[in-house]
Amino acid sequence: MRAAVVTAFDQPLELREVPVPVPGPDEVLVRIEASGLCHTDIHAAQGDWPVRPNPPFTPGHEGVGIIEATGAAATRWQVGDRVAIPWLGYACGHCEYCVSGRETLCEHQRNTGYSVDGAHAEYAVANADYVVAVPDGVGAFDAAPLTCAGVTTYKAIKVAGVRPSERVGVFGIGGLGHLAQQYAQIFGAETVAVDITEDKLRLAHDLGARWTVNAASTDPVAAIRDIGGIDVAVVLAASPRVIEQAFATLRRGGRLVLVSLPKDNTIQLPVFETVLSGLTIIGSIVGTRADLAEVFRLHASGRTRVELELRKLDEVNQAIADVLAGRVSARVVFAL
Amino acid sequence: MRAAVVTAFDQPLELREVPVPVPGPDEVLVRIEASGLCHTDIHAAQGDWPVRPNPPFTPGHEGVGIIEATGAAATRWQVGDRVAIPWLGYACGHCEYCVSGRETLCEHQRNTGYSVDGAHAEYAVANADYVVAVPDGVGAFDAAPLTCAGVTTYKAIKVAGVRPSERVGVFGIGGLGHLAQQYAQIFGAETVAVDITEDKLRLAHDLGARWTVNAASTDPVAAIRDIGGIDVAVVLAASPRVIEQAFATLRRGGRLVLVSLPKDNTIQLPVFETVLSGLTIIGSIVGTRADLAEVFRLHASGRTRVELELRKLDEVNQAIADVLAGRVSARVVFAL
Amino acid sequence: MRAAVVTAFDQPLELREVPVPVPGPDEVLVRIEASGLCHTDIHAAQGDWPVRPNPPFTPGHEGVGIIEATGAAATRWQVGDRVAIPWLGYACGHCEYCVSGRETLCEHQRNTGYSVDGAHAEYAVANADYVVAVPDGVGAFDAAPLTCAGVTTYKAIKVAGVRPSERVGVFGIGGLGHLAQQYAQIFGAETVAVDITEDKLRLAHDLGARWTVNAASTDPVAAIRDIGGIDVAVVLAASPRVIEQAFATLRRGGRLVLVSLPKDNTIQLPVFETVLSGLTIIGSIVGTRADLAEVFRLHASGRTRVELELRKLDEVNQAIADVLAGRVSARVVFAL
Amino acid sequence: MRAAVVTAFDQPLELREVPVPVPGPDEVLVRIEASGLCHTDIHAAQGDWPVRPNPPFTPGHEGVGIIEATGAAATRWQVGDRVAIPWLGYACGHCEYCVSGRETLCEHQRNTGYSVDGAHAEYAVANADYVVAVPDGVGAFDAAPLTCAGVTTYKAIKVAGVRPSERVGVFGIGGLGHLAQQYAQIFGAETVAVDITEDKLRLAHDLGARWTVNAASTDPVAAIRDIGGIDVAVVLAASPRVIEQAFATLRRGGRLVLVSLPKDNTIQLPVFETVLSGLTIIGSIVGTRADLAEVFRLHASGRTRVELELRKLDEVNQAIADVLAGRVSARVVFAL
Repeated sequence: MRAAVVTAFDQPLELREVPVPVPGPDEVLVRIEASGLCHTDIHAAQGDWPVRPNPPFTPGHEGVGIIEATGAAATRWQVGDRVAIPWLGYACGHCEYCVSGRETLCEHQRNTGYSVDGAHAEYAVANADYVVAVPDGVGAFDAAPLTCAGVTTYKAIKVAGVRPSERVGVFGIGGLGHLAQQYAQIFGAETVAVDITEDKLRLAHDLGARWTVNAASTDPVAAIRDIGGIDVAVVLAASPRVIEQAFATLRRGGRLVLVSLPKDNTIQLPVFETVLSGLTIIGSIVGTRADLAEVFRLHASGRTRVELELRKLDEVNQAIADVLAGRVSARVVFAL
Repeated sequence: MRAAVVTAFDQPLELREVPVPVPGPDEVLVRIEASGLCHTDIHAAQGDWPVRPNPPFTPGHEGVGIIEATGAAATRWQVGDRVAIPWLGYACGHCEYCVSGRETLCEHQRNTGYSVDGAHAEYAVANADYVVAVPDGVGAFDAAPLTCAGVTTYKAIKVAGVRPSERVGVFGIGGLGHLAQQYAQIFGAETVAVDITEDKLRLAHDLGARWTVNAASTDPVAAIRDIGGIDVAVVLAASPRVIEQAFATLRRGGRLVLVSLPKDNTIQLPVFETVLSGLTIIGSIVGTRADLAEVFRLHASGRTRVELELRKLDEVNQAIADVLAGRVSARVVFAL
Repeated sequence: MRAAVVTAFDQPLELREVPVPVPGPDEVLVRIEASGLCHTDIHAAQGDWPVRPNPPFTPGHEGVGIIEATGAAATRWQVGDRVAIPWLGYACGHCEYCVSGRETLCEHQRNTGYSVDGAHAEYAVANADYVVAVPDGVGAFDAAPLTCAGVTTYKAIKVAGVRPSERVGVFGIGGLGHLAQQYAQIFGAETVAVDITEDKLRLAHDLGARWTVNAASTDPVAAIRDIGGIDVAVVLAASPRVIEQAFATLRRGGRLVLVSLPKDNTIQLPVFETVLSGLTIIGSIVGTRADLAEVFRLHASGRTRVELELRKLDEVNQAIADVLAGRVSARVVFAL
Repeated sequence: MRAAVVTAFDQPLELREVPVPVPGPDEVLVRIEASGLCHTDIHAAQGDWPVRPNPPFTPGHEGVGIIEATGAAATRWQVGDRVAIPWLGYACGHCEYCVSGRETLCEHQRNTGYSVDGAHAEYAVANADYVVAVPDGVGAFDAAPLTCAGVTTYKAIKVAGVRPSERVGVFGIGGLGHLAQQYAQIFGAETVAVDITEDKLRLAHDLGARWTVNAASTDPVAAIRDIGGIDVAVVLAASPRVIEQAFATLRRGGRLVLVSLPKDNTIQLPVFETVLSGLTIIGSIVGTRADLAEVFRLHASGRTRVELELRKLDEVNQAIADVLAGRVSARVVFAL
């Protein structure tokens, strides 16, 4: 089979012919139909983060496909089932985090496309307990971005405790942001979209944003304060400065959710304002299998729309270059 | 009557003879028995904060005493009732914060001893709806520190969502910290006390701390990580560096509660760790009247012990100097 | 002015000419534009409940109108403001319920159109702190049913903790039910509408119900179990039998919300199923001023649609007769 | 090995010599040190419940012992580890309940001593992921009742959302009740103990109950209303009438937790009071592995005391007879 393989952190990915993997007893073999390109894949391929993967490896953690074989103990699945393979490839299942509904904090987790081979390939194996069923009514291409961009932003809105009639600001309307905005609206909120390109703000408007702010031409802090501030800010732009701006737009009792991981890792926050205004800053990391099942149900019932751009896996390096250059306006999904 | 009055921000307080105030229709007149000295009084007297009070004024927002007269509309009280006069001297009663149980965020609030005259005096008037009954079984002297130091730390533990069997670190065991520790234990947690003096750590130990860490001689981050980290950190030391240390001791899913207000207002936080470990940073400001009533009930049922040091109001400037020099090991309460 | 007055529990209401009331210092005088007819008005007029009102009195607690005069202390309002006068006419403002965001449980509350005169009249006085601003974009006629039917069902969905992708069953699609369904959807849920008339089920379908069940021709328990059960059931039909049916449709972890008040006051519940399936039964009573403000904001942003039928106040007895006979398909609102 | 076996529902248990079971790949073999006798064992042995176990089987789901062998895949345990074997013997690990921290609602669960053989024997096998470590500082005999009576009442207090300074009534002070009371206190509450024997009320008093009510000689509803009512009632007596009494003692906003399973399965509740007073009725079923780990941590830190009575396994039928006759004042634990 063909796979897009990271061979070294300073090299482009290599399209290699490799053997189809064989599922272990707890695993399933999935014929990949669609695999989304997440910014994390690029960080993985470049070895950007403190704990690095070990080349050679295949990135990709928005994999969607059809089960072709099941391990002896993977009895919950049938050949032919469509499943999604998310970032959380495995968790221990018995630590306090796993047992209390917070499996994404498990210290023993394995991550798809990072510590185990991922979905930028014609086939992938995955732990049978950590793949999630893609229900009827959700196509493979839409399912791919939902598997990480979707569930990550859904979870961000959830942990913020967004309530109907609140105002949520989404900072950065891209592959994640346009979904964050929709989830905020599904939780009953009005949304403010902040971005620096008119195309994305137009998309946000079409998706139901009540306000849009072009941060290239307007001070977003002043603009949002003018409308009375917001209750929740979700930051998807990978910039400490945007995080600090987002903080400054919060009303009393407001919540700032951190999702994106800037290269410059440090933010500065004022203690006085945090205390006096009763503000909360929340770090949110992907979502659980239950969250992803909810994301799929919402899509199946017609409540979300996924913006994506199909590419061939052969173009993986071009796609990465396009993402890094800001030439891609929606999630790239490789059609396999 | 005698009152300790701030006449100018660069002057010591002046013990003045002033007229006994007359309660308005919504107010009560309270003969003060005890008035706690809070660090906020010192900031008020020195004009340290962005929004300054207007001299001349009388500080003091841990006032406890006996109602001597009631305004025409203040029908809920009887002459002779013992009440506490907290920081939240008045709130509007109808904004979204007031109506939803978050009155300490009311934008129209008035603050005792800051925007209205406080309790460092023989008498004070206070809004009848915002004083809180001191129940039988709670003495006036104990009630004073509970009125701010108590309710503030109680609320900090509450907003952190502390649950039984969790571990809570209290950074700074003084007037606030020794109460924070007790409230953490009342919520069912085990506690780690961090301070730089052995006296205070001994107090913490006597009050039930499972672990104590002397940050003058040990790296608290290493020491707390050695025992497996903590779920909640409450920071009462007014230092950005201590806040950053406290952050670094959190386990996954942990929560950092900010209470103290350092002069140097800026803290630096790492985004990557906040997101990957699912951490939350919470600003907490005093507590509501309902919180204070709970604090009093807990004390009446014997669950808290208040460390305090009685002084005469005449010694207010000496007391302030002693607090600033670190010569006071517990809450100073003026006996009137 | 003209008012619809209850003179005795066994008599029809009497359209009387009475003096325009004079607001006290804490009150406002409201020229009523619209006043919704709630089933509670009928119970009040007939003295159905344990604690009875004292005739003569004017019912009506979905009053909407324009402030014409303000008491001396009612400084937050301007003449010309549009406000809503809800069931909670006054609460004490300082008990534990009021202070903790649960004012509808205040033991000292006064209720509009029950213990104080209500809005079925050309003018009404109301406590200035307990009327709620009707924002631009919400018309007086729509505002009336939102003031009780709206906020009551909104609160029911809120206390049930409805989350996106859950399934909510609404039992009884009338003045309350058609709003309950919309709020469930605004909280992100899919809805099942249960009623015994096709007209109402058609309305539910048009408002976005995924499933409709005609309980006159189908067993609703079987029908709902066939689709896998529901997470939350909200019962608006005033019948113990319907409550018991609703209970039987719940999935594990499900919640049953009681809102309606059947004449036959007793329901029977099985302990074994409640415990084994981890079910919760929640009594929910109207909503707070903050809830009502949220209801209005949602309507102003176009997220709800109110079904109503305008009548003249002269027709109050006919309207009551029509409601009791089931001849009215939507909320009756008196246009004044 | 010797085991206490149910051979038929109308027969006493039989002490049989049976082969030591062999652990499967996901299982561990535990040499039982202590096994608590729960009322559920008696229901199992008599086939009282709708879904019956299949004789012959060995009851017992409060098993504590030492691992003597581990299956090939049970790598998290070492021979020599002390573990507890609770009611939840297995859950699927991937349904929405398992993934969201509610594994005790899993539809595919297996129950120890009911659908799989339990711990009233010298050895038992158990799924390696569903046994829970007994930490140093918790003896085997104490651990046994904590494994069901402890975690069940701990969970009941948890789902009730008990907060410091609230009042909790415990109805029935036996093997479960004396622990429920302690957990309520650990969550910060004051407790009211209700029972019909003075011995148990004396125990409750010694364990810190603020009030005790002898329901044999006093009307508990009147007695509890006299002290102002309670916020939370936990019912451990298996009687519909006691549940209804407990309901009647609640203050506004109160919560009734159902734990015990009366033979007469039906309770009657008044809708009007439930709605008007904003009451909640909650069914609670055992607890998760995370809850049990918390229960053990609390005991290790000295916060609970377990009342128990040691017996030999040979006396199992006598012990059952004594429990049914009310001759046992604390949890019976079989020492093996």
